[in-house]
Amino acid sequence: MKKKLVLASGSPRRKEILSQAGFSFRVLPVDADESLENRDPEEMVQILAGRKAAACMDLLKKTEGNPENLLVLGADTVVVYDHTILGKPSDREAAADTLRSLQGKCHSVYTGFSLIWMDEQNQIQSAVSAEKTNVFFYPMSEEEIHFYVNTGECDDKAGSYAIQGIGMRYIEKIEGDYHNVVGLPLGRLYQTLKSNHLEIEEAAYDENR
Amino acid sequence: MKKKLVLASGSPRRKEILSQAGFSFRVLPVDADESLENRDPEEMVQILAGRKAAACMDLLKKTEGNPENLLVLGADTVVVYDHTILGKPSDREAAADTLRSLQGKCHSVYTGFSLIWMDEQNQIQSAVSAEKTNVFFYPMSEEEIHFYVNTGECDDKAGSYAIQGIGMRYIEKIEGDYHNVVGLPLGRLYQTLKSNHLEIEEAAYDENR
Repeated sequence: MKKKLVLASGSPRRKEILSQAGFSFRVLPVDADESLENRDPEEMVQILAGRKAAACMDLLKKTEGNPENLLVLGADTVVVYDHTILGKPSDREAAADTLRSLQGKCHSVYTGFSLIWMDEQNQIQSAVSAEKTNVFFYPMSEEEIHFYVNTGECDDKAGSYAIQGIGMRYIEKIEGDYHNVVGLPLGRLYQTLKSNHLEIEEAAYDENR
Repeated sequence: MKKKLVLASGSPRRKEILSQAGFSFRVLPVDADESLENRDPEEMVQILAGRKAAACMDLLKKTEGNPENLLVLGADTVVVYDHTILGKPSDREAAADTLRSLQGKCHSVYTGFSLIWMDEQNQIQSAVSAEKTNVFFYPMSEEEIHFYVNTGECDDKAGSYAIQGIGMRYIEKIEGDYHNVVGLPLGRLYQTLKSNHLEIEEAAYDENR
């Protein structure tokens, strides 16, 4: 039986990736505890993704008649440079400082995801995974950093840039999954669905299958 | 003086990349001779991009009052596996054959671009460059190939897949510029503009500069 995908995230970028990949889904953003002591980033994003998915499934069990049809997806992304996690900038000066440290260098982006569903015996099942992508910036001049920060694109972005926006001007190359940098490692997600024999509803192609 | 960018291509994917990157431009697709004896793919895409840009500049010189304000961009993309250039599939059986050869393996995508403009002495100037990106497919089953081909997404794509569409499910990772695979190496393009001291109109951010 095909499951209905529920995205436990309000991120417009994650929504766009799932849409582009042809999946049908609905969105139910939840609040989850994001506090966590220092850990390996690959472990951290999986724990935080798991909390989001679990909070979403809890909410669905309270509000929906048949959560056994549902498959919940939580995700979390962090940007890491020189063993430091780079969050969203507090202001434009902080964004410029982050860009000064990233320009001309390589950093890493980790996205973890968690899938939670009910099996045929009504038992909760889950799967979790993460991907790492290396991102290489071209050198940037102070003038370019000033221009880019003033576009406003950096304001709400972890790492103070968007590879899918104006920021793509400054990216030389990546090693890994591109969509992982945008917010969801779609290839890995699809392979995880496959290995767990999970089928979800497609947006428009089922009739051809 | 800032120049007005003219894209000598009707590709919706190239348009989308330039828009996402924040550039203002207009589109003037042209026909150019695409016949070429066998060559190195990196050289080939630069020659074909140059023909498109030159044909577009010729047309603009005939129809526009002031081509000295203009900067013409031509581009060409090829997909290469095992020393063979993979074009658009002739039918869905050919698309399935291409996917059978790409699945579980690495192939390369080359995009060349050519910029043509008039300098302050009214002399034609040009710059040309190309990028290579390696793309790694996950293994695909016959059922997956059949499903994917029947979505219709392969029909008009060189290499019979779209990394920005349903095809992203099957991509494990890339090495290089992602947008190069979609159709335009935006990072390299921006660096080429910069090294030639070419400034083009921005979509919406000039007032902040």
